[in-house]
Amino acid sequence: MKALVYTAPESFDFRDVPDPAPGAGEVAVTVGAVGICGSDMHAYLGHDDRRPAPLILGHEVAGTAATGQRVTVNPLVTCGECAACLRGQDNLCPMRQIISMQPREGGFAEAIAIPERNLVTVPDHVSDDQAALAEPIACGWHAARVARAHPAGADGARALVMGGGAIGLGAALSLKAQGVEDVTLVELNEIRRAYLTGHCGQRAVPPDGVGDAPFDIVVDGVGYTDTRAMACAAVRPGGIIVHIGLGSSEGGLDIRRMTLQEITFTGTYTYTAQDFRDTAQAMFEGRLGPLDWTETRPLSEGKTAFDDIRSGRVAAPKILLKPNG
Amino acid sequence: MKALVYTAPESFDFRDVPDPAPGAGEVAVTVGAVGICGSDMHAYLGHDDRRPAPLILGHEVAGTAATGQRVTVNPLVTCGECAACLRGQDNLCPMRQIISMQPREGGFAEAIAIPERNLVTVPDHVSDDQAALAEPIACGWHAARVARAHPAGADGARALVMGGGAIGLGAALSLKAQGVEDVTLVELNEIRRAYLTGHCGQRAVPPDGVGDAPFDIVVDGVGYTDTRAMACAAVRPGGIIVHIGLGSSEGGLDIRRMTLQEITFTGTYTYTAQDFRDTAQAMFEGRLGPLDWTETRPLSEGKTAFDDIRSGRVAAPKILLKPNG
Repeated sequence: MKALVYTAPESFDFRDVPDPAPGAGEVAVTVGAVGICGSDMHAYLGHDDRRPAPLILGHEVAGTAATGQRVTVNPLVTCGECAACLRGQDNLCPMRQIISMQPREGGFAEAIAIPERNLVTVPDHVSDDQAALAEPIACGWHAARVARAHPAGADGARALVMGGGAIGLGAALSLKAQGVEDVTLVELNEIRRAYLTGHCGQRAVPPDGVGDAPFDIVVDGVGYTDTRAMACAAVRPGGIIVHIGLGSSEGGLDIRRMTLQEITFTGTYTYTAQDFRDTAQAMFEGRLGPLDWTETRPLSEGKTAFDDIRSGRVAAPKILLKPNG
Repeated sequence: MKALVYTAPESFDFRDVPDPAPGAGEVAVTVGAVGICGSDMHAYLGHDDRRPAPLILGHEVAGTAATGQRVTVNPLVTCGECAACLRGQDNLCPMRQIISMQPREGGFAEAIAIPERNLVTVPDHVSDDQAALAEPIACGWHAARVARAHPAGADGARALVMGGGAIGLGAALSLKAQGVEDVTLVELNEIRRAYLTGHCGQRAVPPDGVGDAPFDIVVDGVGYTDTRAMACAAVRPGGIIVHIGLGSSEGGLDIRRMTLQEITFTGTYTYTAQDFRDTAQAMFEGRLGPLDWTETRPLSEGKTAFDDIRSGRVAAPKILLKPNG
């Protein structure tokens, strides 16, 4: 099959590779659409030690299973037997793997191999392009659930979400679907901000447009020093910061304020299997909107897509690559 | 009356000052015993912008009210009417004041003025020296309650507490009283560690004696870069760090690990009025042990006590100053 192989920092090779070989309990899925995630960009730039080249990146996959069933793929493979899995926190399984990280190749290819239990069946009225959004939105769904479980996330809470890519937009849509009606998105890039406002119906503002009113919930979907500092300043006493981003490892938190004002900071990583299924169900029922905020490119032109995202030329929160498009 | 007045960094003057003048709803309390807190030390060293000289420090007070009633004093004065107060988070009241910070003088004196609603009556079998521990222990009680409310603090949780002063020991005692049976204390100072083990019956270890097993709950009762880094390394995936300390404002948190492993960090400040009453009640009922881990000094010799604490010569987790001996 053809695959877009990450071969070295800032280099891809679109080339023939062996077809995936499903193991026990696994199935091959023909990729219909696969999203480009910020973590793929991180790897492409050579900044992710967990993803050394050569590697097939991509973990936001929808397509058709070898059984004929149309599916969206939960890329997180867990053991199902450890303490974390048994208490429903399978995303914290110490054996967890994710496609696009060794030993599992990713979805920037014509097909992947994945455990059958990781598939969610997609109804006819939902396209592959829409279904591929389940993974990034599930990250936001999980973050919204964590925020809602905190006392500051009770009914009537106001939320600020930092970053208007698919993670941030997914978090904003999920917060609304979970009952948080007042959500503001912060996006630095002007063309994307205009898209979020005009096309997605979001209240999207630049960093200096947030205003003074403190927020009960702040979701940092970016994860750099600057966004964390902004989150610390924007959250109310007793409020919660939910941190999805993996931008930088240190800095930005005003720990003195967090202590004096009892602010909670919670890291979140992906989603539980239940979160993923709940997200897909909410998507299928239309509770997360029309899911029409993607732009598609042929997989063979993936490198150009990465370079366009990197240079801020992409308005849509998500670019999908299509192996047959 | 006599008071120990903080006059400049590293300087006290034991001198005559005007008697306190109770306002409406307030009462004078003759100080029987008053503890030295880490925050008093911080101020004494000139490191607390909130406590400029000249000022009477000290906020851990027990004594006798002008009404004749023996009392322990909740030093946190709140409005009782704002949103935070009304939802029971009066410690986050934007109008909050604390004795030992302007405009309220503290307890290193023969008497203080305090709202009557801040008093908790002390039964005969509890001494002033024991009753003065309500304030520091209430900080730990509150932290323990926050930890227990988090999923990682469920029954069977194992806890690590950093710092063997009254905050850390109070947190350890409170965790046990609230059902967390497996508690380890980390204390750097060898003579205090020996006291915690031999006199207080605690499992107290040096920083290199914590071992590898990760903890569900970590309470940082110190709050410096080093202790936060240790907390981040010692907490399990999905666990909670409760941060009481105000040592330094930045650094130490491994935000990448906190994100990938969904670790929660919660700042805590003091206690709610309910926490304070619950702590006092638990003390009175003996659920927090014999409360015999104090050393007393005359108030007039307060400066020596500060210098002894600073140089690590004090084994007991708490020094109490006594205006009358």
